[in-house]
Amino acid sequence: MDKLTIIGGDNRQKHLALILADRGITVKIYGIKAPLHHKNIFYYPALSDELFDSEVIMLPIPYKNKNGGLNITDFDWHVKPAAVFRLIKPGSVVIYGMKDQEIIDLSKQHSLKCFNIVEEECFSILNAIPTAEGAIQRAMEKTDFTLHGSRILVLGFGRIGKVLSRMLWGIGAKVTVAARKKEALIWIEEKGYKGIHLNELDSVLNKQNIIFNTIPAPILDRNKLEKVKKDCIIIDLASRPGGVDFQAAAELGLSASLDLSLPGIVAPKTAAEIICRVTYDILKKAYL
Amino acid sequence: MDKLTIIGGDNRQKHLALILADRGITVKIYGIKAPLHHKNIFYYPALSDELFDSEVIMLPIPYKNKNGGLNITDFDWHVKPAAVFRLIKPGSVVIYGMKDQEIIDLSKQHSLKCFNIVEEECFSILNAIPTAEGAIQRAMEKTDFTLHGSRILVLGFGRIGKVLSRMLWGIGAKVTVAARKKEALIWIEEKGYKGIHLNELDSVLNKQNIIFNTIPAPILDRNKLEKVKKDCIIIDLASRPGGVDFQAAAELGLSASLDLSLPGIVAPKTAAEIICRVTYDILKKAYL
Amino acid sequence: MDKLTIIGGDNRQKHLALILADRGITVKIYGIKAPLHHKNIFYYPALSDELFDSEVIMLPIPYKNKNGGLNITDFDWHVKPAAVFRLIKPGSVVIYGMKDQEIIDLSKQHSLKCFNIVEEECFSILNAIPTAEGAIQRAMEKTDFTLHGSRILVLGFGRIGKVLSRMLWGIGAKVTVAARKKEALIWIEEKGYKGIHLNELDSVLNKQNIIFNTIPAPILDRNKLEKVKKDCIIIDLASRPGGVDFQAAAELGLSASLDLSLPGIVAPKTAAEIICRVTYDILKKAYL
Amino acid sequence: MDKLTIIGGDNRQKHLALILADRGITVKIYGIKAPLHHKNIFYYPALSDELFDSEVIMLPIPYKNKNGGLNITDFDWHVKPAAVFRLIKPGSVVIYGMKDQEIIDLSKQHSLKCFNIVEEECFSILNAIPTAEGAIQRAMEKTDFTLHGSRILVLGFGRIGKVLSRMLWGIGAKVTVAARKKEALIWIEEKGYKGIHLNELDSVLNKQNIIFNTIPAPILDRNKLEKVKKDCIIIDLASRPGGVDFQAAAELGLSASLDLSLPGIVAPKTAAEIICRVTYDILKKAYL
Repeated sequence: MDKLTIIGGDNRQKHLALILADRGITVKIYGIKAPLHHKNIFYYPALSDELFDSEVIMLPIPYKNKNGGLNITDFDWHVKPAAVFRLIKPGSVVIYGMKDQEIIDLSKQHSLKCFNIVEEECFSILNAIPTAEGAIQRAMEKTDFTLHGSRILVLGFGRIGKVLSRMLWGIGAKVTVAARKKEALIWIEEKGYKGIHLNELDSVLNKQNIIFNTIPAPILDRNKLEKVKKDCIIIDLASRPGGVDFQAAAELGLSASLDLSLPGIVAPKTAAEIICRVTYDILKKAYL
Repeated sequence: MDKLTIIGGDNRQKHLALILADRGITVKIYGIKAPLHHKNIFYYPALSDELFDSEVIMLPIPYKNKNGGLNITDFDWHVKPAAVFRLIKPGSVVIYGMKDQEIIDLSKQHSLKCFNIVEEECFSILNAIPTAEGAIQRAMEKTDFTLHGSRILVLGFGRIGKVLSRMLWGIGAKVTVAARKKEALIWIEEKGYKGIHLNELDSVLNKQNIIFNTIPAPILDRNKLEKVKKDCIIIDLASRPGGVDFQAAAELGLSASLDLSLPGIVAPKTAAEIICRVTYDILKKAYL
Repeated sequence: MDKLTIIGGDNRQKHLALILADRGITVKIYGIKAPLHHKNIFYYPALSDELFDSEVIMLPIPYKNKNGGLNITDFDWHVKPAAVFRLIKPGSVVIYGMKDQEIIDLSKQHSLKCFNIVEEECFSILNAIPTAEGAIQRAMEKTDFTLHGSRILVLGFGRIGKVLSRMLWGIGAKVTVAARKKEALIWIEEKGYKGIHLNELDSVLNKQNIIFNTIPAPILDRNKLEKVKKDCIIIDLASRPGGVDFQAAAELGLSASLDLSLPGIVAPKTAAEIICRVTYDILKKAYL
Repeated sequence: MDKLTIIGGDNRQKHLALILADRGITVKIYGIKAPLHHKNIFYYPALSDELFDSEVIMLPIPYKNKNGGLNITDFDWHVKPAAVFRLIKPGSVVIYGMKDQEIIDLSKQHSLKCFNIVEEECFSILNAIPTAEGAIQRAMEKTDFTLHGSRILVLGFGRIGKVLSRMLWGIGAKVTVAARKKEALIWIEEKGYKGIHLNELDSVLNKQNIIFNTIPAPILDRNKLEKVKKDCIIIDLASRPGGVDFQAAAELGLSASLDLSLPGIVAPKTAAEIICRVTYDILKKAYL
């Protein structure tokens, strides 16, 4: 790879541009506010042929906002995905994030190799690290007590649940992890945490100082929330609408928040390194 | 103990009042802004005989500000220590913080049992926990990368150095600890961290992403700072003036900050529980 | 479950009998040398109707020896599986170990619910714990140095590789784990171990003090073994024929051993508790 | 140092001879059974002038057996310390182990610099590692269950107690540590173990699967032992007579053993490296 084009995005894309430029790659940028001063970084004010003269086109992650335009956070521009695809050269590799039909259709229409980075297992595991660490930062900020010695419940033992519980344990929290699968519960026990089946959540809810949810399903409904201690801090990491009934939480006077996209917020540089690393993995597959 | 009087202080004293009141102790308060609504908490607008009718008098930690008045952070009042001591009843136990001659003289003059809580070994060990966790929170806030996977140098292997390095290791950082004593270096090695003698600091400085200092001595002088990476984050936890030449750091464009009194700032509730716990230990000694 | 019949087996079955008898279950035994003195344990010298009057029939794990007879280690008896199946009552649940066609045929023929415990994911995870701990015990016995501070290579990051590397890390070894899948390598890195792709094994082989193999494939062939340090200890945990060319190892003067079935050897009581626990899981499924 | 003389000792001295010879030092040996084939190792059948022509004379650790002769385990020789000191050249540095008046007198009489390696703090910390690991090996060998998941009590939180509890925690045991000092109990709590004051031992004794004693005082007397579970394994690491009433333990049918000098038994090579490392430290001090 000699040239890469970045279309929009957030802080992660800025760090990504610098990382790649430092490696000697020519980085062409559209839709990110200047200035990233670097001899290998070039800004383009408009969609142009030259902008798209690159082996790799990096779209935002997620690539589209709720208005259906490309996810360009630095400007108030509305750029239709089709407008960009029209300019991408045959043979270019397109990298984007988001499960979505429109982009699959566009890629077929233009015969382009498009990769949804969010679907790469490696991307998800790597991102679990800044997500878990960001969740810990948020918990530290929201509490007037230490995580050390606190009773902390982690709902779910997927990627984020695994990393998060390991880090909390490493800090010195009293960690309980709730999961549904018997196999997961054995792994939880193997690591020394207290494991509890999701069906038996009620027996531990009233003892927790902090609850992290990682399960994208309505786990903490009003009924469950009523059993939680009044000064418990609830942090939901599961994708919208999350696993917490926030309406009920507010009415019960509980502190609950939905913290999404933490990697780009708390550790954009690490998040950019992850995008960079997985992009190279994707390119290896693309050129096989 | 049935009654305890709190004179001034900060957030920790507010939490302390609530903790003790919940245990059924009558708490008399002067110099802390209301409102802590609790049937066992009583506010006194002025120094009075009734205010001091308690077994224990809790002065601020540290008890005195730089103007020589009691450390009352909620108000702009100047209260001389002598004015308070004049009212303390014989037989009361006085608890305060700070190494200082004036209070020793006052306690002799009034024949009072006064205890400097800061000198209690248990207080120092327990406070190392919120200090270390607060330092980690600060580092997370100041960095755009994760602590996980970062090269982190901890200067000193006293109480804070021990807790901090254990927690960083638990999160997944690459921990190097610098110490002077051979025995400390062996313990560092025993725990799996990389150990380095303070004399050989130069060989590792340029590789670190974060440096925490816990040594109250001029360790990171201009000469050392010149060897540090430009994007390294330096957090100094050592008491004023700290171990970092901040003037030089600023001139070199390095991010360096002095983070003192973290327990009361990031975890006042935990800090109050520590004061409470050590106060009971002191009372046991006092009444023997 | 009120009654359970144990046919043959090893030390694990003896512990299992005691565990169940303590829970008030009537345990009928055939093919295990006495004496387990317990009011709920009954020995049967021969295959009889009464012996098989139980809800659960527990065959050995693995159930068959290389001569095709039931795996009865305490006696020199040759008992054909068919001879046992002829006596098992309809409705009984049969538990056994081993991937094998004969027993599947027998179960169909007699319309019995037969469960291969070895295929239960929970059984495999739980058994990874005594296997890993047994491997550590063997390594301690075979070395004249400490695991702490040693360079230890774990080949494979399946169940046993995961538990083993976590324990070694917990003791204080310098752990490298080799795996083939990119996802596994990221998890290895997340935990702080050094990860290496199996293709790049050569670069680390000559630095290891101990190598554990958990991969059931010819990994350490003569070519690889030639790169290993002469005083390195090799412990193979992968099922026969294992992953080590033992012939080559012997010729090269290397200490290499195949340590199979560790749970039953080093921790038969824990192994019996695992069988007991998974048996109850199986019964829940069987009676649904 | 060019030349070093080893007089007697055990397996550790053999490894030490090889380590030093590999570093190019001429090693002269008396009282250790051959053969250590190495061009820098020389055997002397009798005490001679040439044998003692070395900068450093390494006596056994402990240097004396109960008959008052040098601790020569490979042969049935009785060599009086005085007979050796008569031949040591002025200016040589003598290294030995054991708190003892005779050798202090001899060193004064002959004006020799003699160092009791056992009194070096670094030696004690370093030796705690193979001691703890050896204790774990013994526990693994003596139990028919895994340490993982077991309730394990460590008596004492000195050097060995610290290393041992960290390793047990790392393997996945449920660790309780008993100590007398409040400060120690806070450190125990900081690390996540359950801490208990030695005065309150009774409340936890009946729950333990394994007990390690590191306190050289009669802790586990008959009264305490009566509260221990019948199948608990007791391993005493405290120097003779240890902290366990072995007579009472035997009468109560408990498995209790005194495991001393573990480093030389389970990890003589590591133990030799420790002797080597501390010897260099001592020489630095000696030649200042």
